[in-house]
Amino acid sequence: MVSKRALNMPASPIRRLVPYADEAKRKGIHVYHLNIGQPDLETPKEWYEYIEKFKTKVVAYTHSQGILPLREKFSEYYKKWNINVSPDEIMVTNGGSEAIMFALGVVCDPGDEVIVVEPFYANYAGFAAYLNIKLVPVSTTPENGYRMPEKEAFEKVISSKTKAILFSNPSNPTGVVYSKDELQTIVEVAKENNLVIISDEVYREFAFDNKKSISAFEFEEIHNNLIIVDSISKRYSACGARIGTFITKNKDFYNAAMKFAQARLSPAEITQYGAIGLLNSSEEYMKNAIAEYEKRRDVAYEEIKKIPGVVAHKPEGAFYLSAKLPVDNAEEFIKWMLLNFNVDGKTTMVAPLSGFYATPNAGLSEIRIAYVLSAEKIKDAINILAKGIKEFK
Amino acid sequence: MVSKRALNMPASPIRRLVPYADEAKRKGIHVYHLNIGQPDLETPKEWYEYIEKFKTKVVAYTHSQGILPLREKFSEYYKKWNINVSPDEIMVTNGGSEAIMFALGVVCDPGDEVIVVEPFYANYAGFAAYLNIKLVPVSTTPENGYRMPEKEAFEKVISSKTKAILFSNPSNPTGVVYSKDELQTIVEVAKENNLVIISDEVYREFAFDNKKSISAFEFEEIHNNLIIVDSISKRYSACGARIGTFITKNKDFYNAAMKFAQARLSPAEITQYGAIGLLNSSEEYMKNAIAEYEKRRDVAYEEIKKIPGVVAHKPEGAFYLSAKLPVDNAEEFIKWMLLNFNVDGKTTMVAPLSGFYATPNAGLSEIRIAYVLSAEKIKDAINILAKGIKEFK
Repeated sequence: MVSKRALNMPASPIRRLVPYADEAKRKGIHVYHLNIGQPDLETPKEWYEYIEKFKTKVVAYTHSQGILPLREKFSEYYKKWNINVSPDEIMVTNGGSEAIMFALGVVCDPGDEVIVVEPFYANYAGFAAYLNIKLVPVSTTPENGYRMPEKEAFEKVISSKTKAILFSNPSNPTGVVYSKDELQTIVEVAKENNLVIISDEVYREFAFDNKKSISAFEFEEIHNNLIIVDSISKRYSACGARIGTFITKNKDFYNAAMKFAQARLSPAEITQYGAIGLLNSSEEYMKNAIAEYEKRRDVAYEEIKKIPGVVAHKPEGAFYLSAKLPVDNAEEFIKWMLLNFNVDGKTTMVAPLSGFYATPNAGLSEIRIAYVLSAEKIKDAINILAKGIKEFK
Repeated sequence: MVSKRALNMPASPIRRLVPYADEAKRKGIHVYHLNIGQPDLETPKEWYEYIEKFKTKVVAYTHSQGILPLREKFSEYYKKWNINVSPDEIMVTNGGSEAIMFALGVVCDPGDEVIVVEPFYANYAGFAAYLNIKLVPVSTTPENGYRMPEKEAFEKVISSKTKAILFSNPSNPTGVVYSKDELQTIVEVAKENNLVIISDEVYREFAFDNKKSISAFEFEEIHNNLIIVDSISKRYSACGARIGTFITKNKDFYNAAMKFAQARLSPAEITQYGAIGLLNSSEEYMKNAIAEYEKRRDVAYEEIKKIPGVVAHKPEGAFYLSAKLPVDNAEEFIKWMLLNFNVDGKTTMVAPLSGFYATPNAGLSEIRIAYVLSAEKIKDAINILAKGIKEFK
């Protein structure tokens, strides 16, 4: 009685190995969780301050597009990033997740195709399956540092059913921050083929080495074909807030998404007030967070490149590092690490990268590391990983 | 560039007339909002108490199926309603809305059909459009009090594509509370044709005249084909909490919904703690709420039946009353009330019932009244409605 929609949906590669981690923990083993992008930094104190400040007597539905003070605050914030959008071009969503689902639903009917730059954020595959949309991959490789493919690679896979190009920048899972030239490639492909760009920019802040990530919004010629997806989850260590945004200057897109938004009524009320608080938090907080992730990136990269046979490039942003390991099947290796390996009662869990590819059997030897623990713990965790690789081979 | 999925999606009949209400307000007219099920009763104080009690340093993702203490609390609560489900048979969702979307997605592929008892909760049509599912109506009428149709009415519309029967009990928008015999009809149809019952029971508490609403769960023979949708929104005057549940004893359904749940990561964290508080609120709170809605129901029904030419039956539950007005087009009448009519600077807004039907042109003369204001205000609001009808005709 279960739909094909559900049967065909891939289980999250980030969460599906959790039972093995649970088993390790039952045996008393400490598991370093580098598998999931759940940051450990403290959420800004303004979260609870604003929640307390805006206590309401009746916990009511809000406007479906989100409360105006929050959309105004977002509008202000985006201006600092050269994203000039009014509160009416911003819709508050249940996390970036819902914004992506809205974007896909606005643009695609069942059977339509969306080009994804792979490896990509694994849940894109889940949302596509839920809405019966086909993801068509354009591949990057660990050997070339997961850089954006050439224009021809996109042109080769465009069909009459192609409606959009979906990618994240800075990239989850690879940590690549695309250059202006790389984005120009995508913009040209979209423009020439009348495709919609769905640009997932939730890691905007996290670009290192004094780089700044560039929004797809900076290409004015694409504004009518552009939907930006955003979220406060990573930025403010507030994944549990479930506040994201759907942003577009295309009124038809906005109005279509509004129908979806009205059907589900509204985002939660209290978390929207909390989100205003987060957007009012100090620049200091953000500077420290970026510096902390950069330090961890350095440690993670230094440690991983020490492992013989590993292929990895230095991530430029987000808080992920993707790498090719000298193992045939990374998922089997990860299970083995959880069930059969430990160093002084500790082991390390990472995510298998194959689940971040749409191409069958791609990325089998690759993993994603989320550097969301302290530098010291990351160092220890990757050392354990190195020892595991040696023994597993 | 907008998908047919979005273009075909009906705008919410509850929200689409809001611009006319806004215009009335700009002219200084007070609008009685009987159009939307946003209760005015105060949310139990336990909401904020539990939120403050469970402050976390990192506002983190929770388990995708919701935090265990909340699912345990729900399990306890459901037992009181003869719904014996373990925490592992309960999934916490972003409101009842998401639970319905999960249920439809678990059971249906694009093109599949779901039988709905019409008039039905209007957003069912939105969710179905989003997932490319066809709603096939079985009609009830104001003349027979919107009672459940006979078995033959269902059998007549079943096709090879029919996967489920979806209805709410107590009913939004009609206020009907189905009897054991009426539910038996649906159970038999589902059982004999291997259909899934999606039973939306969010108004469970609100049954009047010492009646008790019966859950579809009480029919054990249907457990393997049953998904119950629930929400705390109405029960605790907490629509803005966005906490609902997806309940099933069918493990395949649960596991399929888990894939959807994992893709969107988790419900908000803080609202789940708040929801535990709500489930711990006093029986006194609920008793008072039920008594208050019953009083309002009495006033609403008394006033509406005074209007010449109106067809209405006394609602038995929820906080809605559906009625047929002596006007050809209720939507035009509602607009006219907002733009051209007021009594001492006040006017009344209700919802047009046509948007709650899937049959084209059905319910054109009907409206839904949400009795979510004080008895005094409801009396005044319906008196204004009566005067409007007289003048509009």
